Amino acid sequence: SSKVPRRLQFFMQDRQLIANNTGVEVAAEGGNLTRYAFGTVFVIDDPITETTSNTSKVVGRGQGMYLVESRSNFHLLVSFSAYLENPQYNGTIVFHGSYKALEPTRELPIIAGTGDFRGITGYAIVST
Amino acid sequence: SSKVPRRLQFFMQDRQLIANNTGVEVAAEGGNLTRYAFGTVFVIDDPITETTSNTSKVVGRGQGMYLVESRSNFHLLVSFSAYLENPQYNGTIVFHGSYKALEPTRELPIIAGTGDFRGITGYAIVST
Amino acid sequence: SSKVPRRLQFFMQDRQLIANNTGVEVAAEGGNLTRYAFGTVFVIDDPITETTSNTSKVVGRGQGMYLVESRSNFHLLVSFSAYLENPQYNGTIVFHGSYKALEPTRELPIIAGTGDFRGITGYAIVST
Repeated sequence: SSKVPRRLQFFMQDRQLIANNTGVEVAAEGGNLTRYAFGTVFVIDDPITETTSNTSKVVGRGQGMYLVESRSNFHLLVSFSAYLENPQYNGTIVFHGSYKALEPTRELPIIAGTGDFRGITGYAIVST
Repeated sequence: SSKVPRRLQFFMQDRQLIANNTGVEVAAEGGNLTRYAFGTVFVIDDPITETTSNTSKVVGRGQGMYLVESRSNFHLLVSFSAYLENPQYNGTIVFHGSYKALEPTRELPIIAGTGDFRGITGYAIVST
Repeated sequence: SSKVPRRLQFFMQDRQLIANNTGVEVAAEGGNLTRYAFGTVFVIDDPITETTSNTSKVVGRGQGMYLVESRSNFHLLVSFSAYLENPQYNGTIVFHGSYKALEPTRELPIIAGTGDFRGITGYAIVST
């Protein structure tokens, strides 16, 4: 869609280790749901906000999953969609790929989109 | 492949809540396999038929997974392949993306293909 | 990246049924973690080596997941990244798609990449 910019910035509030988790653990080795062990699978439903503050305006939801894919580091296979539904956009951006979660910045591929984002590909630079 | 049309229509018979389920639940929050709760993961092996009737000719299989990615609505992360193996085609079409399952129609990205469908991208309009 | 060749060959040492497994089972129908039943989900962290020998030089890791998506054959939904980090390359290649694991050779889509492999698509021919 012509209204989709080449660059877009947003903030996804993902909380797993503290109160008011935004995700849930659903699978793990031996059925032992232990946080962040190799093999653990999380499903997430995170607010996407306008600024870094988790109390700022919600402009969408980040929904999907990630799993711990490494034994000795903290690598994640990440697969989720950003539902951006606000006065500006209506559609999803689909992210799918792997990264080292402890790196200060990492790259995550954008593999598809729907609605206003139909047909997009590209990448995100993620930092926490 | 030049024999692949720009549009293709098929019907996937997915049954989770009734007799003769085509899929299985494999993961959920707390290991509590409850249908359609946030975080529940299903693996599917669905017949793909020529018409909407589930007794019509089977032209392929839809195999892969989906999971419930929302707390308060019914959003799914969907990832499966349509194995189309019939006199016309031989290959897979890979679908991956998110949608609101309760909408009358929704869009699902096609991210890849194999065999006759190698290199394809596009989207499907899904209705139930 | 201009240093990325059009063809690349590597060997991924995936072991699930023998000693020193490289992966773990994390989900299955009814929570019953049984190898290779319909619905079973594996997470993998496999060495990628220079030759077919599993004692040859490690040039990367294959990390991600696969699941058994068929009731009566042995079809897998495969989703993983090859982390290639060596003097030649630094980045990931993202594989995602379905195949019949018992075929002598099968095709697996490459849907994305990061680092030196940013923006790539294509396919792999897999044999075991």
